[in-house]
Amino acid sequence: MRVPPGLTSQDFSSALQEFEAAVGKQWVFTSDEDMDLYRDSYSPFWHEAQDPVPSAAVAPDNVEQVQKVVRIANAYKIPLWTISTGKNLGYGGSAPLLSGSVVLDLKRMDRILEVNDKNHYALVEPGVSYFDLYEYIQERKLKVWIDPADPGWGSLIGNAVDRGGGRTPMRDHFDAHCGMEVVLPSGEVLRTGMGALPGSKTWQQYKYGFGPYVDGLFSQSSLGVVTKMGFWLFPEPEAYLTGTVGVPAREDIVPLVATLANLMNSGMVAGNTSVTSPVAVAARQDSEFAAQHAGPGGPPAQELQQYARTNHLAYWGVELPFYGPAKVVAAQWEFAREKFSAIPGATFQEGATRRFPLDSKESEKFPHTVAMGIPNLSVFGTGSSHSEGHIWFSPIIPMTGEAVLEAQQVFTDAYQEMGMAMGPLFFLGPSSSYPRCFLVLFGFPIEHDVEKNRKNREHFKRLIEVAAAHGWGEYRTHTAFMEAVMSTYSFNNHALLHFHETIKDAVDPNGILSPGKCGIWPKHMRKEKA
Amino acid sequence: MRVPPGLTSQDFSSALQEFEAAVGKQWVFTSDEDMDLYRDSYSPFWHEAQDPVPSAAVAPDNVEQVQKVVRIANAYKIPLWTISTGKNLGYGGSAPLLSGSVVLDLKRMDRILEVNDKNHYALVEPGVSYFDLYEYIQERKLKVWIDPADPGWGSLIGNAVDRGGGRTPMRDHFDAHCGMEVVLPSGEVLRTGMGALPGSKTWQQYKYGFGPYVDGLFSQSSLGVVTKMGFWLFPEPEAYLTGTVGVPAREDIVPLVATLANLMNSGMVAGNTSVTSPVAVAARQDSEFAAQHAGPGGPPAQELQQYARTNHLAYWGVELPFYGPAKVVAAQWEFAREKFSAIPGATFQEGATRRFPLDSKESEKFPHTVAMGIPNLSVFGTGSSHSEGHIWFSPIIPMTGEAVLEAQQVFTDAYQEMGMAMGPLFFLGPSSSYPRCFLVLFGFPIEHDVEKNRKNREHFKRLIEVAAAHGWGEYRTHTAFMEAVMSTYSFNNHALLHFHETIKDAVDPNGILSPGKCGIWPKHMRKEKA
Repeated sequence: MRVPPGLTSQDFSSALQEFEAAVGKQWVFTSDEDMDLYRDSYSPFWHEAQDPVPSAAVAPDNVEQVQKVVRIANAYKIPLWTISTGKNLGYGGSAPLLSGSVVLDLKRMDRILEVNDKNHYALVEPGVSYFDLYEYIQERKLKVWIDPADPGWGSLIGNAVDRGGGRTPMRDHFDAHCGMEVVLPSGEVLRTGMGALPGSKTWQQYKYGFGPYVDGLFSQSSLGVVTKMGFWLFPEPEAYLTGTVGVPAREDIVPLVATLANLMNSGMVAGNTSVTSPVAVAARQDSEFAAQHAGPGGPPAQELQQYARTNHLAYWGVELPFYGPAKVVAAQWEFAREKFSAIPGATFQEGATRRFPLDSKESEKFPHTVAMGIPNLSVFGTGSSHSEGHIWFSPIIPMTGEAVLEAQQVFTDAYQEMGMAMGPLFFLGPSSSYPRCFLVLFGFPIEHDVEKNRKNREHFKRLIEVAAAHGWGEYRTHTAFMEAVMSTYSFNNHALLHFHETIKDAVDPNGILSPGKCGIWPKHMRKEKA
Repeated sequence: MRVPPGLTSQDFSSALQEFEAAVGKQWVFTSDEDMDLYRDSYSPFWHEAQDPVPSAAVAPDNVEQVQKVVRIANAYKIPLWTISTGKNLGYGGSAPLLSGSVVLDLKRMDRILEVNDKNHYALVEPGVSYFDLYEYIQERKLKVWIDPADPGWGSLIGNAVDRGGGRTPMRDHFDAHCGMEVVLPSGEVLRTGMGALPGSKTWQQYKYGFGPYVDGLFSQSSLGVVTKMGFWLFPEPEAYLTGTVGVPAREDIVPLVATLANLMNSGMVAGNTSVTSPVAVAARQDSEFAAQHAGPGGPPAQELQQYARTNHLAYWGVELPFYGPAKVVAAQWEFAREKFSAIPGATFQEGATRRFPLDSKESEKFPHTVAMGIPNLSVFGTGSSHSEGHIWFSPIIPMTGEAVLEAQQVFTDAYQEMGMAMGPLFFLGPSSSYPRCFLVLFGFPIEHDVEKNRKNREHFKRLIEVAAAHGWGEYRTHTAFMEAVMSTYSFNNHALLHFHETIKDAVDPNGILSPGKCGIWPKHMRKEKA
């Protein structure tokens, strides 16, 4: 039997008995086979001693059972690691950061408590996946869209509290939430926003409630266990139209992104967009050209530019999604064409206009259903071609063409310096998963080879440093690198981290919830580390 | 000399000397004349001993001076009450909640640090008013709009941290912020979001940073002094079109609001809307009809309905604002007309389409410039006809017609029961100052008569109770009623308040910042009260 750090076997045995009494014997897991399911399938520590393994997992069915589990953990000072559906692949999967933690697995709490298609919201439990909610809505023919993460098996709550993103106008998943129920480390249950008012009529309709707005504390957090959460949904639009813009020259990225930022920040383009490089895609598929530029830096910009001219390819492209009435989206696309036409040589391609509701056969034909609120697994692993797994390196850069060019240069140089293949960097595709900025997502390889992974980890840390030196920070990271990323958010001698620690110590004095998450350790573990 | 509660005159004298050393002798105020300027001009305690008066005011010029002032206050355990421009009229003005507090007046910190019209944001200090920022933008002909509160003399930061609202698509002022600099009660300075990364390139472009998102803690807060804050601005649109919809019958409010909610929640109508009652406005101005129904309840619904039929007036109306390219706003208004046409007898009136930039003479002609991002003082006092002042009662209700009818009935009954004149309640105009819900704003009278004010205060408390009994909570309130409002957010034995107190005690152990704000008292004052 594995035992959590700092506990005796005897104490842990009696804690397990108490967990069993709280949730039922069949919902407390301790066998090696069961623990394997709670390890990270994409662990950067494959076959190494540091690969975290939980000591047990406990799966409560409701909020009262969560309260009991938390109180037991508090009494025995057992570290808990909370997961929802456990699909956080690339960022740590279902594995705890601290080996020996007990996984608090919320997958059984999968109730859809309300879906309202007049005021367009849902109230769900943590075990509800995008697929679950989508099916519920389809069965009842409700006129609302969800905003799935790319893989539809994820948890709405899990993804939102990790501040994940999607593709529709509601794609900032944390921003789209409204109201929470949280079990605090003390075992007390709290409702936020208007939920704090008994009998409230607007828990899912007004976010802030009264007094300091605390919801943000429970994102990327070790301060509470979210047991219910409301989400704003998008009213089913009449139509969806996409239009693609291409520009011929490398330096056209500057006006391309400036125009894009204007359209997005004014709300006219409200869904996710990604800047791609059609010439880079074509050049990779051209075996002759690709062979000439097989080195880690990829082809020089001027050769790629020449290749684009010769083959009449756009150097950069962006697909614009428009959601709304058919006449409105047509007028929006027309206006966008006018604006982008200021870039000499700009080309335009109009996609089909889709009308809703789609019939199910029709919907099967579309490749990017996620952008239409339909969850699937086909986009799973986008950006990664690594068969043994990947973790995500995900810095935020400004939404400007200058920043895109600079980031491309800086990361190309960094990859070359480390002797790494360029992989998806060959064309850097920044996306607007969050409003007003670009997210750059690098699929970073994980391998079942100890030596290679050691090097990969060094490279990953190097990328974090390189990004920070240029003023770019990660929005989220794998558990193995949380401390490294947090250490770059160091303004005024790590004042923000110290603020987090002050709150952590006050709210969770025994440090039982997700120790180490985002680099925030409870007091006794900070002392041990020091 | 007034002295803060718990201090000796001697200690306070030496504290004042230290304040003078920190900010300059001329920026520490203690005279009665000066203190009068920091009293609430709309105080519900006029001529009463409870009317709060500060003991002094200190006006630092920069963040280092704020740090010094906070550290001195901490050493002497002096309660500070922070104000920006001090224009929070109707919610307490510039007066502290706790009499004898030292006002920390940030009006000298009025620097506009950056305005970016490519990525559409501003970074400002607390003393910057809407007028200041507007003039700065106009002088430089930048292509961005601000979102003013109704009276343009307010502070961007002050209004946003109080979670105030405006009229353009950026009208949720707290939601439109991105990144803060905060002086903590310890005197330490913290930057939030990407600002925690030294040399960050995206402080005003990505909100969350890494780890728990703490910004909400500094809204309606006593946990820190915000010294810088970023705001997302709206790219100047090509055009602005308004269209007004009227519906004939009282029960039409249900489909009217359902259609409105759909258009707003889908982002098509992105600015503020208010549901009004054209028949009620006309009937009030009809002296004969008004005289027949002079009682506190106003005219019965069926008589008002009859009056509407006879005079061909709409029972309900709503003005829809559309922002964007001229062709797009025309298509949006056309679609809206189609949707509202499902309500039998619906009428439509199209306003003029305005093109930007307006020339200054043109802009003077428009009554509601705030909806076009132009600050003024003409809307000041909307909803209140009380010459000696008013405070705001401001509950949030669902965005449904049923809720509007219920609220109208419930508050009419409450006013009648209290023997109060209906005032603006005669037509209840719920507005969508925040997404997905309605705010109902009641201007509540303040008078220079002790007895009348005592009764007014009782009535105000009664309204808070009535609202809470129906599941409606206030989003904000006057300092005199903060404890009463917070006490209605009582789910699970006031778990949220206890959570706030835990954080307050940890972050501000001496309880120096804004004691009592939103009903949150520091530990030693909680003990005294108990």
